[in-house]
Amino acid sequence: MQQLNVELGDRSYPIYIGSDLLSQSGLLARHISGKQVCVVTDDTVAPLYLDALCQALQGYQVLQVVLPTGEAFKTWSTLQQVFDALLAARHDRKTTLIALGGGVIGDMTGFAAACYQRGVDFIQMPTTLLSQVDSSVGGKTGINHPAGKNMLGAFYQPKAVLIDTDSLKTLPAREVSAGLAEIIKYGLIRDVAFLAWLEDNISGLRALDPSLVTEAIARSCQIKAEVVAADEREGGVRAILNLGHTFGHAIEAHQGYGQWLHGEAVGAGMVMALDMSCREGWISRADVDRATALIAAAGLPVSPPGNMQANDFMDLMAVDKKVLDGQLRLVLLKALGQAVVSAEFDSASLQATLAADQS
Amino acid sequence: MQQLNVELGDRSYPIYIGSDLLSQSGLLARHISGKQVCVVTDDTVAPLYLDALCQALQGYQVLQVVLPTGEAFKTWSTLQQVFDALLAARHDRKTTLIALGGGVIGDMTGFAAACYQRGVDFIQMPTTLLSQVDSSVGGKTGINHPAGKNMLGAFYQPKAVLIDTDSLKTLPAREVSAGLAEIIKYGLIRDVAFLAWLEDNISGLRALDPSLVTEAIARSCQIKAEVVAADEREGGVRAILNLGHTFGHAIEAHQGYGQWLHGEAVGAGMVMALDMSCREGWISRADVDRATALIAAAGLPVSPPGNMQANDFMDLMAVDKKVLDGQLRLVLLKALGQAVVSAEFDSASLQATLAADQS
Repeated sequence: MQQLNVELGDRSYPIYIGSDLLSQSGLLARHISGKQVCVVTDDTVAPLYLDALCQALQGYQVLQVVLPTGEAFKTWSTLQQVFDALLAARHDRKTTLIALGGGVIGDMTGFAAACYQRGVDFIQMPTTLLSQVDSSVGGKTGINHPAGKNMLGAFYQPKAVLIDTDSLKTLPAREVSAGLAEIIKYGLIRDVAFLAWLEDNISGLRALDPSLVTEAIARSCQIKAEVVAADEREGGVRAILNLGHTFGHAIEAHQGYGQWLHGEAVGAGMVMALDMSCREGWISRADVDRATALIAAAGLPVSPPGNMQANDFMDLMAVDKKVLDGQLRLVLLKALGQAVVSAEFDSASLQATLAADQS
Repeated sequence: MQQLNVELGDRSYPIYIGSDLLSQSGLLARHISGKQVCVVTDDTVAPLYLDALCQALQGYQVLQVVLPTGEAFKTWSTLQQVFDALLAARHDRKTTLIALGGGVIGDMTGFAAACYQRGVDFIQMPTTLLSQVDSSVGGKTGINHPAGKNMLGAFYQPKAVLIDTDSLKTLPAREVSAGLAEIIKYGLIRDVAFLAWLEDNISGLRALDPSLVTEAIARSCQIKAEVVAADEREGGVRAILNLGHTFGHAIEAHQGYGQWLHGEAVGAGMVMALDMSCREGWISRADVDRATALIAAAGLPVSPPGNMQANDFMDLMAVDKKVLDGQLRLVLLKALGQAVVSAEFDSASLQATLAADQS
């Protein structure tokens, strides 16, 4: 088992990465302060791992909440099911919520924990590669609004993140690729050596070679932990973690949440951000091609859906959370491994990127 | 104009108390960092003060959201109206929400600010006596759930609290009394000299004598600011601010939110807490009678509604946020001016108090 830490003063917490963490009751107990536990999961993950986790929670008063699967249910009305269950079972302020599932479950459970009785403890147990390397770390929680993704939420840190790599064994290949999108992102924004390592090992990663996957998760979490520690509430540098996400969120919203996986939309969105960075003269076309090849090798789309026009992107990106004083800001690359958040780009570059991708 | 400060490190903020603050654009501008402002108010307060405030906000992009009045609308679906309006007007992370109204508007607007894009700035402009001395200070925000009051929310501090005492001129007498309940509470829990001052001045306060009211508000806010600074997230001492509230919340929930004003329920609830403190042998019956007389003189009920039985209280109090590990904790008085939060009371005392009040 590997352990990393997210350093946030009195909100610091550990990330554990390893095999068979789900059943380690001692590790769980270290991060549960009361007698009540509420496991929140979805109807895809529940049949696979819920029993094993509840076995490890013997001795606690355990409440199980099984939500419908998917981004389409990342809404307030789904969240109500968690609140209703907690109140019916009379869970108090010392309860601990455990998010057992992918990013949707983690984001919703974290937001439920942030709101329930004005804040209770929670633990992240991400079961998808994407949530293991991204959404489970850093305290971003929330739900979608019809007008935009993650528009409602809180910065609320978990007490611990337990990443059981065994849970990847049941993950569909399409979701493995989606997770690889975020892993590639860390290389692109911050670590060109990691990018090279990913190019060397992309087939082994898609085949879920245990030691390669553990290494990729640990390296990704380390980068994310460093960035979050520097800027918890995204006042500045943290926004670089959104490389490809402004385009990606527009794709997700346009197609209807859940049609494109988040990682797939980010894959195509990163190619758009790379293309724009090249049009701005910051990176070479060879850099774009190199990164695009890696994204494609990960099994991800490298262009947006054919039914999206430039104005669809412009409309949907106008409500992005990075818009300030009416000005769109994008994460772009000054070089491979070096991202910036900038509103100072030529709007012609943006239009050219959007037009180019209508293929 | 008086100024106090709530000392919470990088979340510290000022409380301004005085006449005609609503129109002081310079004071407002000091606490607004972007170009967008969203004023949230209700259909009772809007016709009285919304125009004046918007006059003072010339130069900003101002969005107005007018919600239906009352505790019955302190729900997620009402809050949705705020989010829908913010998103339709494309307010970004630098927007500032202004809560113009009583406690319900303040709690909901604060929670909206806590959740919108994971947190934006907000300013409290409380227009009722109750919200001026209580809910606008300290960062408790939230909404009700059918199973309990304020069950969903956040600790989220405003950037400033502007208390315009002129707004009390339009306040119904019943709501003045409700505000006095919380003011009396501060004397009971922490300041017996203030309690004596209130006994001397209760008629002048009910008549809204400007200098007496300003003094009572400032003294109340000072006590609240001290308690909140010592314990922002209610891990301990802050709970004493809930004297009478566990009983009071049960009354409100049983009667249907909005039937009894919050301050009225707290008035009756404080008498119940005093009665229990006496049965525990901590304060004398003369103390109870003295405090009850002041609560009555403020125009408040001193016993719960006739249609509530002991088991109604027990059922409703079981979901109180102060319940921990299944154990009810109550705020009781060791002496006048000295409150404690305790689970160590004789359950016979509680039963006797509940039985005694079925009059």
